[in-house]
Amino acid sequence: MGTCLFCKIVAGTVAAATVWEDAATLVFLDHRPLFPGHCLVIPKMHYETLTDLPAEMVGPLFGIVRLVATAVEQAVDSDGSLVAINNRVSQSVPHLHIHVVPRRKKDGLRGFFWPRQKYEGTAEMERVRDRLRETIGRLSANQEIGNAPG
Amino acid sequence: MGTCLFCKIVAGTVAAATVWEDAATLVFLDHRPLFPGHCLVIPKMHYETLTDLPAEMVGPLFGIVRLVATAVEQAVDSDGSLVAINNRVSQSVPHLHIHVVPRRKKDGLRGFFWPRQKYEGTAEMERVRDRLRETIGRLSANQEIGNAPG
Repeated sequence: MGTCLFCKIVAGTVAAATVWEDAATLVFLDHRPLFPGHCLVIPKMHYETLTDLPAEMVGPLFGIVRLVATAVEQAVDSDGSLVAINNRVSQSVPHLHIHVVPRRKKDGLRGFFWPRQKYEGTAEMERVRDRLRETIGRLSANQEIGNAPG
Repeated sequence: MGTCLFCKIVAGTVAAATVWEDAATLVFLDHRPLFPGHCLVIPKMHYETLTDLPAEMVGPLFGIVRLVATAVEQAVDSDGSLVAINNRVSQSVPHLHIHVVPRRKKDGLRGFFWPRQKYEGTAEMERVRDRLRETIGRLSANQEIGNAPG
């Protein structure tokens, strides 16, 4: 992964403002923040998307995301936070990264909640629901994705 | 939590298009989707934000988020997905919910990545970084938030 920007940050060959580090995880400031304090949480190993992250790494990584979300809100005294992952589309660096962004009321960020649609009707909604049920069932049964439902 | 919409969905007194359920987790279609297939993943217990979620529930819940993100992409044949959590600000229902939204290239959703800023300079960036380091250090040391760094 010699060309991955975030792998270079992990390796120390590209500088970043690191705010947390453990054996598996690195947290640093996004250098072009939505708002000051905007952090990126990454696994040190190179995985492109959330799907690619091994099941056993999900809990530890998102434990850090939870910690960072709490810390960001306190550190910059915000009203709340946004936690977001772009998988492939709108993903600027193809190395899984979780954005943690401080939010304030009326901060001008409408988020992603503008072009809401409606399902054309109950039948379309049920068709999508059934397709999702089938897909989740298949993924779970085939252990194509190793989650451990509680 | 008699008035919480999502608690009512969990209790079955408000209908929803459920796509996954286990003892601790419910996944259903957002009825006003960004795009068809837009799911909400919630803990059945009422927690307002990610910070409020008990540490031991982080791994199982986000294991389901990973499963659903993978399933949504396959179910609607999308190019990618957006996973997002609004903590308090822009949070329409005060019951933790993780949005999983299918994304396509040029789908018109610019996401939340428009009003990017720059830190005024290195000093400001380092000040924010240091404040975050201190806050994370305090939260970790005091176990105010029970994460388990790997």
